[in-house]
Amino acid sequence: MFRSDNERTDLALERATIATSRAGQQIPGMDVREEEMDGIKITRVSVHTPQAGAQIGKPPGRYFTLECPALRFRSRETLKHVAGIIAAELSELAGLPRQNDVLIVGLGNWQATPDALGPRVVSQLMITRNIREHLPQELGGRLNPVAAISPGVLGITGMETIDIVRGIVEQVRPELVITVDALAARSPSRLLTTIQIADTGIQPGSGVGNKRPGINQETLGIPVIAIGIPTVVSGAAIAMDALDAYFQRFNPHARATLDSVGDFLGQELRDLMVTTKDIDVEIMEMSKLLASALNKATQPAISEEEMLDYLQ
Amino acid sequence: MFRSDNERTDLALERATIATSRAGQQIPGMDVREEEMDGIKITRVSVHTPQAGAQIGKPPGRYFTLECPALRFRSRETLKHVAGIIAAELSELAGLPRQNDVLIVGLGNWQATPDALGPRVVSQLMITRNIREHLPQELGGRLNPVAAISPGVLGITGMETIDIVRGIVEQVRPELVITVDALAARSPSRLLTTIQIADTGIQPGSGVGNKRPGINQETLGIPVIAIGIPTVVSGAAIAMDALDAYFQRFNPHARATLDSVGDFLGQELRDLMVTTKDIDVEIMEMSKLLASALNKATQPAISEEEMLDYLQ
Amino acid sequence: MFRSDNERTDLALERATIATSRAGQQIPGMDVREEEMDGIKITRVSVHTPQAGAQIGKPPGRYFTLECPALRFRSRETLKHVAGIIAAELSELAGLPRQNDVLIVGLGNWQATPDALGPRVVSQLMITRNIREHLPQELGGRLNPVAAISPGVLGITGMETIDIVRGIVEQVRPELVITVDALAARSPSRLLTTIQIADTGIQPGSGVGNKRPGINQETLGIPVIAIGIPTVVSGAAIAMDALDAYFQRFNPHARATLDSVGDFLGQELRDLMVTTKDIDVEIMEMSKLLASALNKATQPAISEEEMLDYLQ
Amino acid sequence: MFRSDNERTDLALERATIATSRAGQQIPGMDVREEEMDGIKITRVSVHTPQAGAQIGKPPGRYFTLECPALRFRSRETLKHVAGIIAAELSELAGLPRQNDVLIVGLGNWQATPDALGPRVVSQLMITRNIREHLPQELGGRLNPVAAISPGVLGITGMETIDIVRGIVEQVRPELVITVDALAARSPSRLLTTIQIADTGIQPGSGVGNKRPGINQETLGIPVIAIGIPTVVSGAAIAMDALDAYFQRFNPHARATLDSVGDFLGQELRDLMVTTKDIDVEIMEMSKLLASALNKATQPAISEEEMLDYLQ
Repeated sequence: MFRSDNERTDLALERATIATSRAGQQIPGMDVREEEMDGIKITRVSVHTPQAGAQIGKPPGRYFTLECPALRFRSRETLKHVAGIIAAELSELAGLPRQNDVLIVGLGNWQATPDALGPRVVSQLMITRNIREHLPQELGGRLNPVAAISPGVLGITGMETIDIVRGIVEQVRPELVITVDALAARSPSRLLTTIQIADTGIQPGSGVGNKRPGINQETLGIPVIAIGIPTVVSGAAIAMDALDAYFQRFNPHARATLDSVGDFLGQELRDLMVTTKDIDVEIMEMSKLLASALNKATQPAISEEEMLDYLQ
Repeated sequence: MFRSDNERTDLALERATIATSRAGQQIPGMDVREEEMDGIKITRVSVHTPQAGAQIGKPPGRYFTLECPALRFRSRETLKHVAGIIAAELSELAGLPRQNDVLIVGLGNWQATPDALGPRVVSQLMITRNIREHLPQELGGRLNPVAAISPGVLGITGMETIDIVRGIVEQVRPELVITVDALAARSPSRLLTTIQIADTGIQPGSGVGNKRPGINQETLGIPVIAIGIPTVVSGAAIAMDALDAYFQRFNPHARATLDSVGDFLGQELRDLMVTTKDIDVEIMEMSKLLASALNKATQPAISEEEMLDYLQ
Repeated sequence: MFRSDNERTDLALERATIATSRAGQQIPGMDVREEEMDGIKITRVSVHTPQAGAQIGKPPGRYFTLECPALRFRSRETLKHVAGIIAAELSELAGLPRQNDVLIVGLGNWQATPDALGPRVVSQLMITRNIREHLPQELGGRLNPVAAISPGVLGITGMETIDIVRGIVEQVRPELVITVDALAARSPSRLLTTIQIADTGIQPGSGVGNKRPGINQETLGIPVIAIGIPTVVSGAAIAMDALDAYFQRFNPHARATLDSVGDFLGQELRDLMVTTKDIDVEIMEMSKLLASALNKATQPAISEEEMLDYLQ
Repeated sequence: MFRSDNERTDLALERATIATSRAGQQIPGMDVREEEMDGIKITRVSVHTPQAGAQIGKPPGRYFTLECPALRFRSRETLKHVAGIIAAELSELAGLPRQNDVLIVGLGNWQATPDALGPRVVSQLMITRNIREHLPQELGGRLNPVAAISPGVLGITGMETIDIVRGIVEQVRPELVITVDALAARSPSRLLTTIQIADTGIQPGSGVGNKRPGINQETLGIPVIAIGIPTVVSGAAIAMDALDAYFQRFNPHARATLDSVGDFLGQELRDLMVTTKDIDVEIMEMSKLLASALNKATQPAISEEEMLDYLQ
């Protein structure tokens, strides 16, 4: 129903829902499985064919999404529970732990709070690649090699992120890359309460029609797992929601006109982003959660207590 | 026309426009003067009576607003030109320079980019109160005493900002306080392109009905000038704009229903804020502009070249 | 033996040792008790009379010092153990927990890593003063009110720190102030391995002869506990150590000339500070340790798990 | 006279002086030219042969050193004058401007103030590589392509800096790399008052005997210019200076014993670094100076006024 420009979302889950609703039927070559427990909903979208991928604007692959509205309340118990699920899923999708190097890449801009998720996660990781050989064998032998970098965005470096990452990968020769990034969602209710893990890597910018090369197996030659959390929705999304709510309530028959209004609005709202009022605290909490899940998944032989010894 | 909850703005200019439009006539006790030159629009709202203040939800006083859409392009020429106008207006409203101490207070949260304007301005000010006596008379004699602090927000200190500021004022005994703060606007087109200076001080939170004490002459016992730049609009504002645009175009007669839709939306959008995609760069530029205007207004005897010698 | 200018240290323990060695006998009015266990040495210096205070250049009061060379290795176990001892000592010296407000003040300059200890501790504290009333009674009733601020140094604010703190104290009316600060030591072996707690508050600058008012019961009207960790020694201290080592080994009879050399060196070395090569990591670890000890001492009814729920 | 361990310096000028004094004659294959004007001393050390390089512990190449004690007073005039000289020398040594890409690499650790020079310079550079094609030809045609990155240190990334830089160079294919780094000096009087430019690239760690690969033409395949400013001296240097001063004054005949004392001291002082008390302000000023010189040298067709339009 919505035009693609107003549908901008990095979540496969949202794209699958929109595409299915638009098609009025199941998308062939894609299957969606859901489970729910203890207030946590997990959705697994599998895109099996390029045709299905084209319909949702995402490359074929597996997309795991965890939704937990209670993350908003930031209780230690919830954060720990979710970190455990994410660690397990990362291990599954990424085949962790790995005996050989894993490179974790924090994407995004550390100078803009809503885009700072990746760099903040990286600053809390357990970096081991350089210290294993200097440790007693008893300990060093249980550590898997992890390296990490936050390369900065195009405006800061003047270079495409893929070029920086590809260059490092060719020198350091990791077995796997994991990217961490702040995402855009379509629905504001998903901000900071949803986590996506994909085995397809990432596509900078909004996907469809974008010619910039992705950070993925095709461009790096090794598997790329992308983990992300939506921190912004577009201004257009909010506007369209308002109109849709109005139509649903007052004028259901006029919903067909929504498209043209959206078109008109898009222009004005393009330079806006919508985020939460507590974004500073929420980014901090969610970056801790992801760092903890990544540390756990990459270093299963190290207890949480022991892990704290290596973290600064 | 709009409900007060969806009208949340710190700009007197916007509140005056809304109130006038709602009243369908000039508000008695308030006058609004506009001038425009070289793409810069200046509006002076004077609120002469408490009654007029109640209608716009702002205390009586003088409100200067500069709107310059070209600030968005950040050309040095525009930034310098606007800084000059702001310096002149500050001098006028604040009676600068002052022989006695001026205290500049950077309000807001340095951990959230859109709220970091005040602290960033303070970090670029020329602080002179402590060095004048250590300088050669030739130079020290031309410097006026300026002190500054960024106290941090309630969630970080556990204390109301007014308590911190009042305490410092009673010890340091400045002659004048100037606050610098990020503001909320109603219209997204004003984000980072509008500057407000008020001789009324500030009211933390959204104004109407808020019981938290303000930072103003009443609470501090000395004049308080507030300078601010809108960096966010509420999610509700964007939603209402979308609906209004729809009605204007497709259903002008139904605008009366807007209110109830707004009511319904308000609930969902309350925890969202809308800002610009380039907020990191824009905050940096506008904080430079305000710091430069404040330095100029407080130290008119120091040339720009000489000023750079004191700044770090 | 050493000249006062080369003896610059904020540690009562070092000053007591120097003064005793110079006097060639116990200082009347001062007693020093030591205990040692598990590689941790604890010294309690009690200065009972102004005369004794004058001899060591510190006001009368109680000074607790913990020395733990193993802190250098930053094992979680050691850090936790020391945090427990500091929490207990803070409780004892400061009469914690307090039903009424406690204000924690992070002194020092966040822009210079070796001086950033205070501000970093403050950023990791559990701030409760503002939230107790908004919490369920079951929880809020168990929280004690804690507020905190990092006011910044004179060069940044243009104001004496004591003025800022005194102003806040008079508005907020806490029952107790705890300052946290980076200290200067005389011996490099104490850097980042020693923690001092004093019930005398602090004296900005180096003490003897300094006319700037202190942050203490006399100036604030309420008890002031000062907690600090040495992060720097003066360049002169290193130079004197080298000379002393030389004399001890090669020319014991010439030690009398040390003084005049020290005098000569002082001039050149005055603008230097000596710190550790790992200061960035060590400041981070020790700020965590102190924040954890302060949180524990101020909120004994909250478990460590529960505490993490409030921290960002 | 001094042992190599106590001679740790990254300045070719200091190494040349020490080596010459030790040899008691000119080093064959090395020439040193000095000029002095307006309180600025410029020394050009040319190392023509590997033998000469081995004697001073630096690879063959050209080393430019500017010494300006007045930099300590940070007057705008001095800073601008020195920036101009550095820009001119960079242009000469680096063959600037370049039609093809220049990559500037900020080395060092942003979390430790004395080591943060490189990252701070990078954050103030004019990054143009990504915007030239989007600009009007009139302007874009006058811009030369500059990219930059601060990769972080080994402890933060787990990767050798050379691997990161080499990887990027192979992808981005710049014509030239310029590194910016904080250096170690032997003499404290050179801290923050000396600037070195070398056409030899850099050798991580202290040089002699270090097996870690350098960042230089040999490892990158393109010219590498290294620009640096000393921000630390070793604790051992201060200690040795004290002993030397003592001997000079009181016991000139005993200077032969200095070596063994130095040996003894070295052990204890190895983990200390000595920097200036105003390091936070001085790093800020000197990073501005270098960024300004680099911007000027890389973009000679852009006026200073115009340049400010691109900088954030």
